[in-house]
Amino acid sequence: MKALVYDGVETLGYRDVAKAMQNEGEHLIRIEASGICGSDMHAYLGHDNRRPAPLILGHEAAGVIEGGPEAGRRVTINPLVTCRRCKACTTGRENLCAERQIISMPPREGAFAQYVAMPGSNLVTVPDGVALAKAALAEPLAVSWHAVRLALEALHPEMERSALVLGGGAIGLAAALALHAMGVEEVTILEPNDNRRGFLADRCGQAVTHEGKRPASIVIDAVGYAATRATASRLAMPGGVIAHVGLGEGAGGLDIRRMTLQEISFIGTYTYTARDFRDTVQAIFDGRLGALDWFETRALSEGAQAFRDLRAGAVAAPKIVLDPWS
Amino acid sequence: MKALVYDGVETLGYRDVAKAMQNEGEHLIRIEASGICGSDMHAYLGHDNRRPAPLILGHEAAGVIEGGPEAGRRVTINPLVTCRRCKACTTGRENLCAERQIISMPPREGAFAQYVAMPGSNLVTVPDGVALAKAALAEPLAVSWHAVRLALEALHPEMERSALVLGGGAIGLAAALALHAMGVEEVTILEPNDNRRGFLADRCGQAVTHEGKRPASIVIDAVGYAATRATASRLAMPGGVIAHVGLGEGAGGLDIRRMTLQEISFIGTYTYTARDFRDTVQAIFDGRLGALDWFETRALSEGAQAFRDLRAGAVAAPKIVLDPWS
Repeated sequence: MKALVYDGVETLGYRDVAKAMQNEGEHLIRIEASGICGSDMHAYLGHDNRRPAPLILGHEAAGVIEGGPEAGRRVTINPLVTCRRCKACTTGRENLCAERQIISMPPREGAFAQYVAMPGSNLVTVPDGVALAKAALAEPLAVSWHAVRLALEALHPEMERSALVLGGGAIGLAAALALHAMGVEEVTILEPNDNRRGFLADRCGQAVTHEGKRPASIVIDAVGYAATRATASRLAMPGGVIAHVGLGEGAGGLDIRRMTLQEISFIGTYTYTARDFRDTVQAIFDGRLGALDWFETRALSEGAQAFRDLRAGAVAAPKIVLDPWS
Repeated sequence: MKALVYDGVETLGYRDVAKAMQNEGEHLIRIEASGICGSDMHAYLGHDNRRPAPLILGHEAAGVIEGGPEAGRRVTINPLVTCRRCKACTTGRENLCAERQIISMPPREGAFAQYVAMPGSNLVTVPDGVALAKAALAEPLAVSWHAVRLALEALHPEMERSALVLGGGAIGLAAALALHAMGVEEVTILEPNDNRRGFLADRCGQAVTHEGKRPASIVIDAVGYAATRATASRLAMPGGVIAHVGLGEGAGGLDIRRMTLQEISFIGTYTYTARDFRDTVQAIFDGRLGALDWFETRALSEGAQAFRDLRAGAVAAPKIVLDPWS
């Protein structure tokens, strides 16, 4: 099969590799759409030691089951494979399973390829009326849905609900969409890139700003650098909540003194529970997350250029989805 | 009246000052016991810009109402004075009031003195059978009660409950006592000072350790330095909670990458709500916080020496209570 292989820092090769093989209980999925995530970019830049080269990246995918009794079923993929037996798994926090695996990290190859093997429990059926490229957005949307759910659960019930989202990539935009879907009306996205900001305002109808001024009770850090955390801890209201999704830098930035004196909570949030993933997919199908037309499709064979363009800040759309068959 | 005045870095003067005067709605309290807090020590070392010299420090006090219709009523003091009208105050989060004041910070002088003026709503009656020196512990106990309550509320209900407390001063010990009172059975205090550790084990019956090895679902940082936060973010279990009370250093230490990937929450916690303060006082009276005999009493006139001894790490007891009348 064709795949886009991460061969080393800033090096991607599009070539033939051995076709994905399913283990027992798994299905072979013919991938129709596979989105590029910020964490793929971290790996591409050599900043993610969980993703050593050579490796097929990509974990935001949708496609069609190939072969077997369910052949032809259109599905979107929850890429997080967990043990389903431990305390975390049995109490609805599968994302904290000590044995968790995610496709695009060893031992599982990723979805920048024509096929991927996945357990049946990781597949959610996509109705005929929903495009598979849109269904491939389920994964980043679920990341943000989960972060927003945790933030709202942590917020004192009597506090006003307002939100500032740091970063206008797919995770930031998805957080804004989840916030709206969960009833938060005042949501602003802080995004420094002019093109991206214009796209979010004009194409997605989002309130955007290029500088953080107005405090909010909820701050979603969808970037995760020391600089964004400094902004988060400066602009979270007293008693407010920072939900931290980004994996930019491993330490620094938080104004701990202010967070202590003003009782600001910081919530580390990673991927999603199985329930969050299903709830997100349902919200996609119901239209509660909007038109979801904010991605750009490119051929997988042109994937290396897509990474270069993203790296250069030259992509206005918050998401590029790769098509392995064009 | 006599008072211990903070005159500048590491300088305290015991001398006559103008007697405290009550405003309308306030009572004059004859102070019988006034504890030394870690934050008094920060101020003494010149590390707290909220407490500029010259100033009377001290905010952990109990005494007797002097004059007026309630003369003779034995009371412990909630030192946090709030507006009682704002959203924070009316929703039970008085500690987040934007106009909050605390005695020992301008414009309010502290309780290392023979008298202090306080609003009636800040006073809680102490039964005859409870010593006022013990009642003066209400304030640090309430700080920890509040932190533990917030941590338990933030902890996922299905998680096992175990706690590691960083620092064996009064706030750390009080956190351990509050954890036990709220039903957490496995509690360990991490304290590097041998004398202090011996006191906690032998006199207070606490489980202590000099090195952090065993992860816990709840970590209480009662110190607040970068080094203790590094320990907290290393030893909090996946999905666990760090409650941060200490005000040692303003930034640094947290392993944000681990906190994100393992969904660890960090809760800034400061003082207590009015309800927490009352609940703590009730727990003191009920005996739920133990014998509360872990303080050492000294004369206010010897207060400067007490600060020097604390600074030198030469005090085994987690608390020194000063008596302004001996």
